Amino acid sequence: MRRTHVNIGLIGYAFMGKAHSHAFKDVAMFFPELRLRPVMKAICGRNEAAVKAAAERYGWESWETDAMKLISRPDIDVVDIASPGWAHKEQVLAAARAGKAIICEKPIANTLAEAKEMAAAVRKARVPSLVMFNYRRVPAVALAREIIRAGEIGEIRHFRAFYLQDWIVDPAFPLVWRLDREQAGSGALGDIGSHIIDMARFLVGELDEVCGMTRTFIRERPLPAADSGSGLRRQAARGRKMGKVTVDDAAAWLASFDNGAVGTFEATRFATGRKNFNGFEIYGSRGGLCFNFEDMNRLQFLSLKDGAARQGFRDILVTDATHPYIKAWWPAGHIIGYEHTFVNAVYDFLEALASKKPASPDMDDGLRVQAVLEAIEISARNREWVRVRDLL
Amino acid sequence: MRRTHVNIGLIGYAFMGKAHSHAFKDVAMFFPELRLRPVMKAICGRNEAAVKAAAERYGWESWETDAMKLISRPDIDVVDIASPGWAHKEQVLAAARAGKAIICEKPIANTLAEAKEMAAAVRKARVPSLVMFNYRRVPAVALAREIIRAGEIGEIRHFRAFYLQDWIVDPAFPLVWRLDREQAGSGALGDIGSHIIDMARFLVGELDEVCGMTRTFIRERPLPAADSGSGLRRQAARGRKMGKVTVDDAAAWLASFDNGAVGTFEATRFATGRKNFNGFEIYGSRGGLCFNFEDMNRLQFLSLKDGAARQGFRDILVTDATHPYIKAWWPAGHIIGYEHTFVNAVYDFLEALASKKPASPDMDDGLRVQAVLEAIEISARNREWVRVRDLL
Amino acid sequence: MRRTHVNIGLIGYAFMGKAHSHAFKDVAMFFPELRLRPVMKAICGRNEAAVKAAAERYGWESWETDAMKLISRPDIDVVDIASPGWAHKEQVLAAARAGKAIICEKPIANTLAEAKEMAAAVRKARVPSLVMFNYRRVPAVALAREIIRAGEIGEIRHFRAFYLQDWIVDPAFPLVWRLDREQAGSGALGDIGSHIIDMARFLVGELDEVCGMTRTFIRERPLPAADSGSGLRRQAARGRKMGKVTVDDAAAWLASFDNGAVGTFEATRFATGRKNFNGFEIYGSRGGLCFNFEDMNRLQFLSLKDGAARQGFRDILVTDATHPYIKAWWPAGHIIGYEHTFVNAVYDFLEALASKKPASPDMDDGLRVQAVLEAIEISARNREWVRVRDLL
Amino acid sequence: MRRTHVNIGLIGYAFMGKAHSHAFKDVAMFFPELRLRPVMKAICGRNEAAVKAAAERYGWESWETDAMKLISRPDIDVVDIASPGWAHKEQVLAAARAGKAIICEKPIANTLAEAKEMAAAVRKARVPSLVMFNYRRVPAVALAREIIRAGEIGEIRHFRAFYLQDWIVDPAFPLVWRLDREQAGSGALGDIGSHIIDMARFLVGELDEVCGMTRTFIRERPLPAADSGSGLRRQAARGRKMGKVTVDDAAAWLASFDNGAVGTFEATRFATGRKNFNGFEIYGSRGGLCFNFEDMNRLQFLSLKDGAARQGFRDILVTDATHPYIKAWWPAGHIIGYEHTFVNAVYDFLEALASKKPASPDMDDGLRVQAVLEAIEISARNREWVRVRDLL
Repeated sequence: MRRTHVNIGLIGYAFMGKAHSHAFKDVAMFFPELRLRPVMKAICGRNEAAVKAAAERYGWESWETDAMKLISRPDIDVVDIASPGWAHKEQVLAAARAGKAIICEKPIANTLAEAKEMAAAVRKARVPSLVMFNYRRVPAVALAREIIRAGEIGEIRHFRAFYLQDWIVDPAFPLVWRLDREQAGSGALGDIGSHIIDMARFLVGELDEVCGMTRTFIRERPLPAADSGSGLRRQAARGRKMGKVTVDDAAAWLASFDNGAVGTFEATRFATGRKNFNGFEIYGSRGGLCFNFEDMNRLQFLSLKDGAARQGFRDILVTDATHPYIKAWWPAGHIIGYEHTFVNAVYDFLEALASKKPASPDMDDGLRVQAVLEAIEISARNREWVRVRDLL
Repeated sequence: MRRTHVNIGLIGYAFMGKAHSHAFKDVAMFFPELRLRPVMKAICGRNEAAVKAAAERYGWESWETDAMKLISRPDIDVVDIASPGWAHKEQVLAAARAGKAIICEKPIANTLAEAKEMAAAVRKARVPSLVMFNYRRVPAVALAREIIRAGEIGEIRHFRAFYLQDWIVDPAFPLVWRLDREQAGSGALGDIGSHIIDMARFLVGELDEVCGMTRTFIRERPLPAADSGSGLRRQAARGRKMGKVTVDDAAAWLASFDNGAVGTFEATRFATGRKNFNGFEIYGSRGGLCFNFEDMNRLQFLSLKDGAARQGFRDILVTDATHPYIKAWWPAGHIIGYEHTFVNAVYDFLEALASKKPASPDMDDGLRVQAVLEAIEISARNREWVRVRDLL
Repeated sequence: MRRTHVNIGLIGYAFMGKAHSHAFKDVAMFFPELRLRPVMKAICGRNEAAVKAAAERYGWESWETDAMKLISRPDIDVVDIASPGWAHKEQVLAAARAGKAIICEKPIANTLAEAKEMAAAVRKARVPSLVMFNYRRVPAVALAREIIRAGEIGEIRHFRAFYLQDWIVDPAFPLVWRLDREQAGSGALGDIGSHIIDMARFLVGELDEVCGMTRTFIRERPLPAADSGSGLRRQAARGRKMGKVTVDDAAAWLASFDNGAVGTFEATRFATGRKNFNGFEIYGSRGGLCFNFEDMNRLQFLSLKDGAARQGFRDILVTDATHPYIKAWWPAGHIIGYEHTFVNAVYDFLEALASKKPASPDMDDGLRVQAVLEAIEISARNREWVRVRDLL
Repeated sequence: MRRTHVNIGLIGYAFMGKAHSHAFKDVAMFFPELRLRPVMKAICGRNEAAVKAAAERYGWESWETDAMKLISRPDIDVVDIASPGWAHKEQVLAAARAGKAIICEKPIANTLAEAKEMAAAVRKARVPSLVMFNYRRVPAVALAREIIRAGEIGEIRHFRAFYLQDWIVDPAFPLVWRLDREQAGSGALGDIGSHIIDMARFLVGELDEVCGMTRTFIRERPLPAADSGSGLRRQAARGRKMGKVTVDDAAAWLASFDNGAVGTFEATRFATGRKNFNGFEIYGSRGGLCFNFEDMNRLQFLSLKDGAARQGFRDILVTDATHPYIKAWWPAGHIIGYEHTFVNAVYDFLEALASKKPASPDMDDGLRVQAVLEAIEISARNREWVRVRDLL
């Protein structure tokens, strides 16, 4: 008998937990054609009171405090890993062993060695996987890919990507887990740099070589109160004991792509005034494309076919029924927001499951992003160019 | 005993039905502090197959095909009227008689006479009411009001509002119900002009006099197939029998406000390239404010306090936790979209119910908007200035 | 023998005097193909010390303090009238009688009666004339006209124009001549409203009917010191004797065009934060165009031919050699500014003289603009619609 | 006796020759307070017919075809070198020997060795010098420097600069002199990269280390007809004999600054759709600044002092009398263009001469820029980081 539902178990209930929960909650409402509907079976977190509250608030049927227990539950089909980076490896390995389909937050690991082990396990277990590079699911980004694939901007010469934030500009902002290498693997590089590396691979192709630098502008910060939370909205804590920041505040790197394009990348938490300024500029032999997530419903597109006298970047409001994902949402001009990217991603993943086709980006894509991250760290440490494929 | 839940009955399952359903579905997830939680009791529509499908898709417990029956159900506390304009009056009167709290789509009626009867009934029944001028609940708009109230732009001299769409530019677009005066009351004027009149009242105050013009550019259109749907995404129907367009395609009007400000307004379905270009410019003695819904997460604010050498419209990304409604949503820079305005509106309404305070805008506000609409129609017909309060 | 030079006499040496002088000084440098070169023969102003200084600064060969004397000088071929509005009529009549070619600042007169007399005199004398509606000579505006003429936006449905300034928002700003009806004719209406009326005629066609309102927000201001200058940069004068403002601070009007388009217009000196915010939005059956002088090197153009999935306003940087006037200036991307509009205008005028073709806009165009201004004033006074051609 | 005039001799009559000529022609008109007025004594070019025509068109009193002769003319006080890079050294050395004040186009030389010799000669001769990094004289850029110097954006953490053009995207575009290393020294790197290096030094300070890459996308192009002109507007030449491109089409580099800031830079002639897209983003501990020359009258400025709820990049229209250079030009809102930067630069230089103070940037600044260019070329060749001061 054909299955019509799939049971989800989610690990994590903070910022990403909320975003993933919402996606499972709403996906069938907006994509009624869905062949495989998610059942919000269980959510997992170490703090029982908190995870229980989250279960109720987000609509999960049950909760667990032990991730391994959740993963092993026979009623769970899909394990969705939205925990911090240090916890990913063990959870992915367990889920793969248990034959569960896997959704995993990015970057998949804190080190390349972990990532290799994880990707190998998933490959061996032949379980479906999706890494949550959610920005691929912005309609404007999906449209950019359509335009590139159709050859409308020709051969790509330049790719610039940036992901600029400013949430730790204040030196009194506390030393949350995202600023600790043990827990987070790296700083801006892994957290947001990983997104723009995925974007580069999605839109341009594989990176050949990279040369990068990292910088920690503020090397000591006040220790936070007991639980650090997601860190994104935490109040500054003045007058407390200080601790050492062990990750980068900012990273910048040059890259060459296999196809000959030149790449420049910036990821920082010190771009005062920028909140989630995540985007790209692409220049090809026949046109150009620009995008910025803070205006996520817009894509700038220039085509040389318009002729010199009528040429200009077209400010496309990506809300037409002909645009990717939009039919699910609202009439033209009624824009969508951040959480919609997760709904679109979950839709794509569930459709892949239903049709038994691979989802994308999968754990191997996650591995390749991790290799680029590692290459940048090596490059920054050794002050040299590093070939990405030499690490794989 | 204090109630913790309130039962909702929704009339309408098309575009607005979807938007309202989503709001009830998600409001408690994003506003967990909600004191009164909505229960999605029943949805109502005349086509049983369609309403049943909508009930399942959106998560309503039951469905009805007779609005009067829905209204009279004792398990319904709030009647939410998202039907076409011609049906509002009867439904509001019935709901008021039945002592139900009322949510009503805008404009509240097809004529001022109807609106008066409705507002009187609601007043007499002393039931809470909310008219769904959802754009008040855009965080940037709520922030604009905060700035005005705090005196930061001083005395308002100019208010310009516009609501530009282009969905019927194609002469082959069919004669849907929104183009028929019997069903829709008016065209661009009532449908989208009502929103910018509400915005004017929300931000500036009462309109004193108006002088307007309306225009129907395309006077005949092909008749649509059986059911016209919402009309916003309908395919053009070529080669069919033609029918007469009986509403305005566009309206423009001048206004003076009680406080001395000058107003200019445009509402049209013929602004080629504009989809939901709904916004305002306000200039006061100490600053200015600009907004456009197509970039709904931004507010432009200029303050003379910045001094001549540092003065410029500030492009505020309205996603900070200090901004209205934002705490419910995502960290700074993670933007929201169209349907969030309905969630915010429903939250405000439920909180008003819980605290037994009046919601806003209520049926009397709806009446005042209707009076302005009528004044503009009279003005356009008689080619003269019309004082709004003379109609009330 | 074919003439190669033409002698110019300029009346006025303030803001407009500077702009016109610069145009004569530079036109042959940028347009070397010019067949008739201007010789800066004489400049005229009532204050001898000031006009002498201006002559030296701007490069005029001589100066006069009596406009009638300048006009009658046999060595003057072209009389360029950049004096305040009250002085235009006498000067134009004298120049026409003397058979001189005429350039005249806008609006051509302070009243329609004067304008009729002037246009008749010029017609009778068969002298060439140019009214300095310089914004027609912005390359982006000329390009907009090309696009419209080529049918690329189809039939025009909506024309919106605005000219927003804020230089008298401060109540302490003194009562300069531009705020005095005797000297200036009207306020924002004639000074800047005339520009957008000309723009409407240039891009859309004749206005049929208008209905407008005017407003004076601040009715008394401190009297200025002796000479009021151009008024645009004057320091506020506190504590002086007060005088009455006798012109409008702001005007707004609706219009219908002969071709069926709907027009909305705003002209104000009270749009806090706007300096020279002069532009338009045009929507036609096949596309749209937007322009704002503060970004004068850009034109926004949308074409339905781009298809729904690739449609967006193109942000055309109007600096390509294929764009109007640009070949005279710099390579693509090297933008031009305000005074270039005067250089372009003078070039067009001199080429018209050389080819013995009429220049445009001429004194009859100036008259038609004046009729619209008068229609708006009548409309505002009588609170009624006024047909423009009834006044001609 | 105090001198009131200074005699200029200009070498070069193409693109830069036009821009410099215009500056000398107009500077006294717009800056009447000038203490030392330029006399346009002589212009020099190798093609006699062309230089004679230029002399007449631009208003030079005489012309020369031999630069050495021009330099040695006793009536020349200032030698302005607007010739191609290969010619600079000999001309600067001769001018310095002759004790002339020197204006020199950028970059000052084709190699660092040349630049060192030139700077030493100028230092030894103690003659005033100005290198024509004209973008420093954009009012918005000068304002950015004021804001930085006043501490309004705090300590600078990130500096990004870009100079994007697209004039050689077409493979049929011919092999003009700017694409030949012998004549031009380098490609995008020296031509436009030098501008953004100067900008970095002007706004942030000295670059410590750089790591860069260069790329030539199209390695062969058709040979041009006899005279290559400026190359910026040349028509594509199809079917001709091919020649080798010996310079970079694009360059990108990372940098660290002495003050700890991180820098990323891009210079390219292959950014399809970008014409003169030359600008920066700066993020500091207390605010941010953004600029792009294609909108040169605007500066984006964000200040943390505005508070989280009112914070946004201010879009400053840099046309107020309180802004740098603006008093010379037009009232607020009347924007300026490209050539004004040269007028402003010449004004500053002449005032420096009059007050016997050093001009800026001088030949030593030019040398430091050249060292950065050389460091980037070494870095790109050797694939390593290079410390700039090690080359000086």
